[in-house]
Amino acid sequence: MNGIKLAVCQMKIGDDKNKNLSVAEDMIKESSGLGAQMVVLPEVFNAPYQSALFPDYAESFPGITTEFLARSAALHKIYLIGGSIIEKEDGRLYNSSFIYGPTGDLLGRHRKIHLFDVEIENGITFHESDTLSPGNSVSVFNSTPLPIGVMICFDIRFPELARRYVLEGAQMLVVPAAFNTTTGPAHWEILMRTRAVDNQCYVIAASPARNPDSNYQAWGHSMIVDPWGKILAEAGICQEIILADVSFDLIRQIRTQMPLLKQRRPELY
Amino acid sequence: MNGIKLAVCQMKIGDDKNKNLSVAEDMIKESSGLGAQMVVLPEVFNAPYQSALFPDYAESFPGITTEFLARSAALHKIYLIGGSIIEKEDGRLYNSSFIYGPTGDLLGRHRKIHLFDVEIENGITFHESDTLSPGNSVSVFNSTPLPIGVMICFDIRFPELARRYVLEGAQMLVVPAAFNTTTGPAHWEILMRTRAVDNQCYVIAASPARNPDSNYQAWGHSMIVDPWGKILAEAGICQEIILADVSFDLIRQIRTQMPLLKQRRPELY
Repeated sequence: MNGIKLAVCQMKIGDDKNKNLSVAEDMIKESSGLGAQMVVLPEVFNAPYQSALFPDYAESFPGITTEFLARSAALHKIYLIGGSIIEKEDGRLYNSSFIYGPTGDLLGRHRKIHLFDVEIENGITFHESDTLSPGNSVSVFNSTPLPIGVMICFDIRFPELARRYVLEGAQMLVVPAAFNTTTGPAHWEILMRTRAVDNQCYVIAASPARNPDSNYQAWGHSMIVDPWGKILAEAGICQEIILADVSFDLIRQIRTQMPLLKQRRPELY
Repeated sequence: MNGIKLAVCQMKIGDDKNKNLSVAEDMIKESSGLGAQMVVLPEVFNAPYQSALFPDYAESFPGITTEFLARSAALHKIYLIGGSIIEKEDGRLYNSSFIYGPTGDLLGRHRKIHLFDVEIENGITFHESDTLSPGNSVSVFNSTPLPIGVMICFDIRFPELARRYVLEGAQMLVVPAAFNTTTGPAHWEILMRTRAVDNQCYVIAASPARNPDSNYQAWGHSMIVDPWGKILAEAGICQEIILADVSFDLIRQIRTQMPLLKQRRPELY
């Protein structure tokens, strides 16, 4: 296989979990109909992005949402990176991404390791750690068509995490993320593109669509970025599917022409 | 002191070393006249950027160019980050940046540690290591009005070096650099801005101007980027001075509002 067709579902997410799952179901089906072999959903795709509400929407694994993901992956025979959900375990809550393969098998789980705690003057204030606990492990998933590292939203701000994934073999970074109207216009595009350029890998950023009724205005602009930093597909702010072809050859080619990963001087930093 | 006025001299560089020094002299004088307290020159500002010619233009320290830099800094009572020159020592050549203070004292030297060796299909081919040796040390300069890390051109492609500097206290990254018409449009702006955003520091990128007579077409677009990733000043492709105010308060403010450097999880990467 020299490549794969990938779709990102920029879902409009509301308060009703069943309705959110139904929107995801329709968009996954449509993506598959368009030829996507891998489908990516946004951060907290089954619930509103509000720290205080996370406990109400949390689920243990397996639960209604992870069962839905497994069933959808198997039904359409796709790799499904299930954005993230609020996961409950042993009395703690996590912002977790579950990844399924085309037989419906669970291939991996990433728990967001950097929680979103900021207080920007005249901008956004958010304290994810009021209700969530951070993940404590980092691993590359190798059972997908190309090795993948998952970074959930604020995780993308830490270049050392992207680098760690890529040094462990990742060729694609998948980023379910809900930037907002303060950080989105300032940072979204350059962060996604620079992680791709530095690490010579694909970067897949999956945002919720803007929802005027929501307490939290997501930035939108989901994008698929190639290893040279070129945006192959970009959404606007509304509900939308974006699609692009991921080329395994391009990764090899760029890593050969400009062998950054070999030119590192790890003894100096 | 709550800030400093900074200038970047985007010089048009030719084959004649004396003429290059004379252009630098005029631009430093003009920058000082405009109120600049710190002035930054481009990479290899006294010679054409061609690997095969580096030996002809190389100088031991102290030499004609470093003496010029010391004299200029003292004359105008400025901090002068002397871009870079080809430095000769013990039979080896380095791409080195010399930094002088307002009394003409040498405050530091950075030798480029990542050499520019690339072969891009239908783009640029360059082998800096044909004639140069890499630097082997990394240090933050603390005798400047704010602590500075210097990254020469290809050094900027390595996010771990920027991070190392900032963890050691740097609040500004100074990048004398000659990107080209292949890598410039693709990567220049997003690399400079993302290093600033990730590290919540100023990034000062100093390029030569485009020179149609030159073998190597520099990208130009020198820029001064603030710690939120905003471009405060940007040159075009011609010879030009750009100026901006650097605010020490803004660095503190951004690092407080979004405390990325404290939110790192070094135990995980």
